[in-house]
Amino acid sequence: MFSLPLRDNAQLRPLELWHAEEFAVHMDRAREHIRPWVGRTFVTDDLDGARATLRRYAERRAADGAGLYGIWLDGVLVGGVLFADFDASSGSCEIGCWLEPAAEGRGLVTQACRVLLDWAFGTRGMHRAEWHCRADNKRSAAVSERLGMTLEGVRRESWSYDGSRHDTQIWAVLAREWRITRPSDAVPPV
Amino acid sequence: MFSLPLRDNAQLRPLELWHAEEFAVHMDRAREHIRPWVGRTFVTDDLDGARATLRRYAERRAADGAGLYGIWLDGVLVGGVLFADFDASSGSCEIGCWLEPAAEGRGLVTQACRVLLDWAFGTRGMHRAEWHCRADNKRSAAVSERLGMTLEGVRRESWSYDGSRHDTQIWAVLAREWRITRPSDAVPPV
Amino acid sequence: MFSLPLRDNAQLRPLELWHAEEFAVHMDRAREHIRPWVGRTFVTDDLDGARATLRRYAERRAADGAGLYGIWLDGVLVGGVLFADFDASSGSCEIGCWLEPAAEGRGLVTQACRVLLDWAFGTRGMHRAEWHCRADNKRSAAVSERLGMTLEGVRRESWSYDGSRHDTQIWAVLAREWRITRPSDAVPPV
Amino acid sequence: MFSLPLRDNAQLRPLELWHAEEFAVHMDRAREHIRPWVGRTFVTDDLDGARATLRRYAERRAADGAGLYGIWLDGVLVGGVLFADFDASSGSCEIGCWLEPAAEGRGLVTQACRVLLDWAFGTRGMHRAEWHCRADNKRSAAVSERLGMTLEGVRRESWSYDGSRHDTQIWAVLAREWRITRPSDAVPPV
Amino acid sequence: MFSLPLRDNAQLRPLELWHAEEFAVHMDRAREHIRPWVGRTFVTDDLDGARATLRRYAERRAADGAGLYGIWLDGVLVGGVLFADFDASSGSCEIGCWLEPAAEGRGLVTQACRVLLDWAFGTRGMHRAEWHCRADNKRSAAVSERLGMTLEGVRRESWSYDGSRHDTQIWAVLAREWRITRPSDAVPPV
Amino acid sequence: MFSLPLRDNAQLRPLELWHAEEFAVHMDRAREHIRPWVGRTFVTDDLDGARATLRRYAERRAADGAGLYGIWLDGVLVGGVLFADFDASSGSCEIGCWLEPAAEGRGLVTQACRVLLDWAFGTRGMHRAEWHCRADNKRSAAVSERLGMTLEGVRRESWSYDGSRHDTQIWAVLAREWRITRPSDAVPPV
Repeated sequence: MFSLPLRDNAQLRPLELWHAEEFAVHMDRAREHIRPWVGRTFVTDDLDGARATLRRYAERRAADGAGLYGIWLDGVLVGGVLFADFDASSGSCEIGCWLEPAAEGRGLVTQACRVLLDWAFGTRGMHRAEWHCRADNKRSAAVSERLGMTLEGVRRESWSYDGSRHDTQIWAVLAREWRITRPSDAVPPV
Repeated sequence: MFSLPLRDNAQLRPLELWHAEEFAVHMDRAREHIRPWVGRTFVTDDLDGARATLRRYAERRAADGAGLYGIWLDGVLVGGVLFADFDASSGSCEIGCWLEPAAEGRGLVTQACRVLLDWAFGTRGMHRAEWHCRADNKRSAAVSERLGMTLEGVRRESWSYDGSRHDTQIWAVLAREWRITRPSDAVPPV
Repeated sequence: MFSLPLRDNAQLRPLELWHAEEFAVHMDRAREHIRPWVGRTFVTDDLDGARATLRRYAERRAADGAGLYGIWLDGVLVGGVLFADFDASSGSCEIGCWLEPAAEGRGLVTQACRVLLDWAFGTRGMHRAEWHCRADNKRSAAVSERLGMTLEGVRRESWSYDGSRHDTQIWAVLAREWRITRPSDAVPPV
Repeated sequence: MFSLPLRDNAQLRPLELWHAEEFAVHMDRAREHIRPWVGRTFVTDDLDGARATLRRYAERRAADGAGLYGIWLDGVLVGGVLFADFDASSGSCEIGCWLEPAAEGRGLVTQACRVLLDWAFGTRGMHRAEWHCRADNKRSAAVSERLGMTLEGVRRESWSYDGSRHDTQIWAVLAREWRITRPSDAVPPV
Repeated sequence: MFSLPLRDNAQLRPLELWHAEEFAVHMDRAREHIRPWVGRTFVTDDLDGARATLRRYAERRAADGAGLYGIWLDGVLVGGVLFADFDASSGSCEIGCWLEPAAEGRGLVTQACRVLLDWAFGTRGMHRAEWHCRADNKRSAAVSERLGMTLEGVRRESWSYDGSRHDTQIWAVLAREWRITRPSDAVPPV
Repeated sequence: MFSLPLRDNAQLRPLELWHAEEFAVHMDRAREHIRPWVGRTFVTDDLDGARATLRRYAERRAADGAGLYGIWLDGVLVGGVLFADFDASSGSCEIGCWLEPAAEGRGLVTQACRVLLDWAFGTRGMHRAEWHCRADNKRSAAVSERLGMTLEGVRRESWSYDGSRHDTQIWAVLAREWRITRPSDAVPPV
């Protein structure tokens, strides 16, 4: 019912349980591409798995604890952004993203993340927002830099994938930094 | 984060758990006005009650079973519309509304209900949508007529309020009727 | 442990979880006959399904919200009646029935429904009791008429079965109507 | 809805959640009399406590694990019998009772227990039924003897009451013993 | 992390969820040997079953209601002792044991049970501890005697195994008896 | 039942639900001293609060997800160490501590943390263990240094206390670092 326009005929919408079939088909296109870079439980193999992911986030969203938002490009679900964690009582959240290959290179994720941060800082009064990525995920680190985030630390060998271990970067942006970063003519958050 | 413009500087947004304080204050203004016309558990007396209502609907929404949407007028929560019931497997849903006095007479509820029906019929493929109201609630019946609904029946003395009993009307509109009713230039549902 | 005599050597008893095997065997005889006329989740295919139905009703009965009562004819479970819904706080309930072919035509269902209505109105002080059936289910509508019910409305195309849609009738009887309808020499409800 | 006649214008019925007010009032009359002889959680002080007891047993009954049955004398709830435990998989159950003073001395409990045992052994195929009582509860031990039970053991100092400890007797009757004990003209169990 | 030395290079430790694989392998060695003498749900066939047992006890232990403790002999899990039941509010508990054949005859179970009883009586202030065993389980009855327990009763034919029924003995020791039984130089319980 | 000796007549034991009264009394002595340095939900005001903390950790421990261990000095509970998080599937855990003033300066926490790390790395095969503390908590940072941990990052202004915000340090030690750090004659972990 609700939708926000992104560039290139793309749209951002809440990704909900009833999208399960669409999400499963999208996962078929995205799976191998995103598997090294996202959390282990996020990549699923079938409709039941897709439904489980959507339900898990829906339940956390109902408790104001997380949130999943899909990106549709030309009417096709191609990825999304999320609040991996959202803790209003401490004023901290963590955002993230995933995208299938065909939709890369258009800045959709960066633009969608800005929507999340505008809402987190502007509407919800959060104090800081984090971004976690594998240290060798250049593309992801570039997004966090474009969002004005600062590298705050490196969790050594904390990311386990396919039998080997990788460092995890923690980036973050504070509310007062976000207000400086945002162009003055930005759409006011709702 | 998401919002749809209604007329008169009003907006429709998902009404969520984190709105509890705003919802409780709104309920203070709406309580006596809406009490005779809404379900008994909908009217609450304090912040805990407001939170309980929002949580109950959030959990049902997480399971694709209901949904609560607030109407903000000039930035103030003044009422809303809802899927009191939403059953995708049978293709039937029930919509409803509530409004505080100051926001009446502007057609906000009718416009917001159209958004719900566009989504239910256009996006979700529902087959029918119901509207339940006390038989002596002229204002509510008028909304259902404006939505192109047909009076399908009257549940005699099924509405208990303040020691007396009232009839309840059941109105409904079918998907094919909705497609005829809607102006052809309407914004395509998302 | 408890049992009420119906005519023709039939008996009405609470239908409980421990009847699961008997209920599954009965369902084998009743399945194709009742499938078009009962709720989609009521018809099950095996013992696990039968157990799930009995457990679901048992849990609702524990909370005073529904109830399942079997009809045994010559010691064989042949069908039953139920409170599909029972809401003491609003004073409304809905009753229903199902029967395998061999037990039809004896008036067992009508007699069993009278037991439920005597209890609902006489013992529990309910205000109204509903009966829902497909509009083309002549046999079911005839039961509701025999129970003194009034047709209150028709939910158009709300009953989905096997790819097509049917109207659903809503019948109801009020407490004061029931007291007039019942013969004065009826056994007092317990 | 269901009822079994006992002697002296008394009746045995399932004791359910909706009896909470009646049960609370009965508990006011029975409390001090039964407190030394029943389980600690069975005696409650108000309507919420009564409701909690009834709900707890209702939930166990829904899972075929226990059961509460009230005795009404001249239309007044005066006590009851129960399956304190019912385990169909092992074939063992435990029965018990409680009664307010005014209803004592009529054999109501013994008669009601016979109903439970007929059902447990005759209908449900249980193998044994136990009876637990404080060793100094002569009245209770007399019931178990009348039921044809054998004293199987004494749990020393296992009953804690009001700061002191008492022995607990375990009585039991086996299915084959029950069939011998019952008079041949007994009503067949249902 | 925690461990208590028993004789013969054996150790007693909490048996927890993360031991599931080790427990499943041990069950492969113990299964046929212990099946006649332990509760029906304790013997499992695979890793999932082992995990279910450990989880069930872990949840009861979290609520102070039971406890599972493994015996490791030369670093191999060979059996254990348990609080089959632990009810601090009534001051009663029940202990038990199981052992694979290779570890029998060393007194490990008796020694481990003494640890449980020292803790139950000395640290937790329990009043009595029970021991249940099949009446024809000479080995088990011998343990209860070595622990200074008294035979309090025999539940006739209450133990169902492989189509036949056996008597169950109830043994128990009271706190004051335990203090007499224990040698004065025993390690003080912690 | 289980206990590990620390220096100065101190002992480390699982801190469980049944310690609630002792934990509440300890919290009375520790509250104001630890409040600025521990998580907001850890400091409680009464017995119910103490019980809630112990139950929450007990349930997570039952699922192998966390763990609470008390330090008793001369028989008095004076503080403890914990797995604030324990995720065997990713090989990462987080440890922490708290202590009332009278027990400081003896190295008890460092010694107790070594027990946790020996178990995490040696017994459970974890890959890394973290330590989180307010950046101005010199005493806590000193413990992490003594444990051979490396400062991996600083979460800016992520610690909210009493209306102001503080940075949070993340320290960590890897399994291979721990093996080098530990003296070769250390007691083998169990």
